[in-house]
Amino acid sequence: MAGENALNFQMIEAAAGRLAGHVRETPLLNSPFIDAIAGRRVWVKAECLQHTGSFKFRGGWSAVSALEGAGGVLAYSSGNHAQGVAAAARAHGREAVIVMPEDAPAVKIANTRAYGAEVVLYDRATGDREAIGAELAEARGLTLIRPYDEPLVIAGQGTCGLEIARQAAEAGVTGGDVIVCCGGGGLTSGIALALERTAPGFRVRPAEPEGFDDVARSLASGMIQKNNALGGSICDAIVTPQPGELTFPIMQRLCGPGVAVSDEEALRAVAQAFLRLKIVVEPGGAVALASALFQGDAIEGEDVVVVVSGGNVDAGVFAEAIRTYGDAA
Amino acid sequence: MAGENALNFQMIEAAAGRLAGHVRETPLLNSPFIDAIAGRRVWVKAECLQHTGSFKFRGGWSAVSALEGAGGVLAYSSGNHAQGVAAAARAHGREAVIVMPEDAPAVKIANTRAYGAEVVLYDRATGDREAIGAELAEARGLTLIRPYDEPLVIAGQGTCGLEIARQAAEAGVTGGDVIVCCGGGGLTSGIALALERTAPGFRVRPAEPEGFDDVARSLASGMIQKNNALGGSICDAIVTPQPGELTFPIMQRLCGPGVAVSDEEALRAVAQAFLRLKIVVEPGGAVALASALFQGDAIEGEDVVVVVSGGNVDAGVFAEAIRTYGDAA
Repeated sequence: MAGENALNFQMIEAAAGRLAGHVRETPLLNSPFIDAIAGRRVWVKAECLQHTGSFKFRGGWSAVSALEGAGGVLAYSSGNHAQGVAAAARAHGREAVIVMPEDAPAVKIANTRAYGAEVVLYDRATGDREAIGAELAEARGLTLIRPYDEPLVIAGQGTCGLEIARQAAEAGVTGGDVIVCCGGGGLTSGIALALERTAPGFRVRPAEPEGFDDVARSLASGMIQKNNALGGSICDAIVTPQPGELTFPIMQRLCGPGVAVSDEEALRAVAQAFLRLKIVVEPGGAVALASALFQGDAIEGEDVVVVVSGGNVDAGVFAEAIRTYGDAA
Repeated sequence: MAGENALNFQMIEAAAGRLAGHVRETPLLNSPFIDAIAGRRVWVKAECLQHTGSFKFRGGWSAVSALEGAGGVLAYSSGNHAQGVAAAARAHGREAVIVMPEDAPAVKIANTRAYGAEVVLYDRATGDREAIGAELAEARGLTLIRPYDEPLVIAGQGTCGLEIARQAAEAGVTGGDVIVCCGGGGLTSGIALALERTAPGFRVRPAEPEGFDDVARSLASGMIQKNNALGGSICDAIVTPQPGELTFPIMQRLCGPGVAVSDEEALRAVAQAFLRLKIVVEPGGAVALASALFQGDAIEGEDVVVVVSGGNVDAGVFAEAIRTYGDAA
């Protein structure tokens, strides 16, 4: 695997070239009602509208499209990365094997299979997904695509930053905080690298769930910090053990302080996105919007850009969120 | 009011010029899962993502931006047209008075006021909104903006057709059915006029709720037919008494046969849009998508474009739809 030095703006531009015509340029949405709650103008980059329902399609496409030879790909994932890699592989006529825990939501297993991937299930309690994956990759000549600690994946996610720079400029916005839902940091670091070159007036900041703010604590302390737990947040899609080895140095160099929101704030943001923006957002994909709505004191500037990272949410969770918080104020 | 002859493609182009930079170019979405249900490729023009949550902002902006002098505007509406006109008027610094039934949903009254309009409530049982409106317009020098039988409004809705032609061509699609959710016919006739010039390979067709298919019956019989009732459909946003006097001749000249869907089909389409496209659609805004999903035998061609016309739906209705129909198949 290449080190951080291998990752630069040119890789993002190259990824953008490979993604052109295949990735969806997602809209930058806004609403006066959202602005009124936040006390500033809020610009929402709606990556839930991306193919496969999350930004992960960008990184998946970037990695698969750069492969040489004819071999297939392998990924570990219980969710959005699985679907992004599977869809990209199918479009390239490559085999995709996704190693998923057998207790992953049935809909995500079904979707991953529907995108043409072979799903290999393992028992989370007794199995070792890395060992299973390594054995499969060796035996079948598959290339592992990591979810965030992979330069081609980070470069793919960075293409979202190129769009933000262009769309924000069209809206007359050239500076302020850009808040990004952050798990391992692939999207956050990719966007930060893209904006460093194309819109340096912006400052990228990671948003996380309270109690799972490993990136915020790592940035504050200057060294990688781990989460105490890996379950128990409704924002499961963005809970990872710790910042990536490649992504953390980029975030350390380029990002402002992290923001953490409660599960209730995330669900309130899901409801506001339903009510005012007409988009479907999963709780983990709503933490950046929640930051803008409910943690305004922590944000600087008249404008803030937030990235809604995905929309793959169960009907029951979404219905409960909008029933509880989705009536107009 | 101008007659049909006053309405031509140049008026749509002129409206597009006035709307540029103010209207949102909504995305043309697709999903392999939607395609699999429909049995063909389905392209979804997501006007629920338009400002104010529906295409009505286009017509409102078109009409308000063409006004001369400094007077305000008046509209009758219990829903989407009210918000579109109110938002457009505020942006132009013009007074807006909206005459609404006092039993309109509280959220729609609140939203219309939040867009800066003065809401005048009347009792649907005893009041006459046209008389109330005429008196107000006369006393205060306001210009009435009709919801569909108004050339400037039809021209504004037609700008959606210009976008469809361009976006479909980018996707490699230049012909097939374009199915449009249809109430009074402003959106349907505007899109038909736009596509007649810019993408003549397409055939526009109105979609309506079963039992409220006045446009389909009017097209079939060659003369204007009325609905027997004005309530009782979950697709209330697109239920109107009869086709417009301006819109019907345009639809008669340019549109293919209408399609009608059941309330259950509309709700299933709402759920599929949630699950596969990550957009919030109101039942009335989902009837065109429902046609593509569940009435495939009535549609011609390998590709179909459907317009999702709005997303202003109560949380309770939406939650019920996705709980009932929103689990992955």
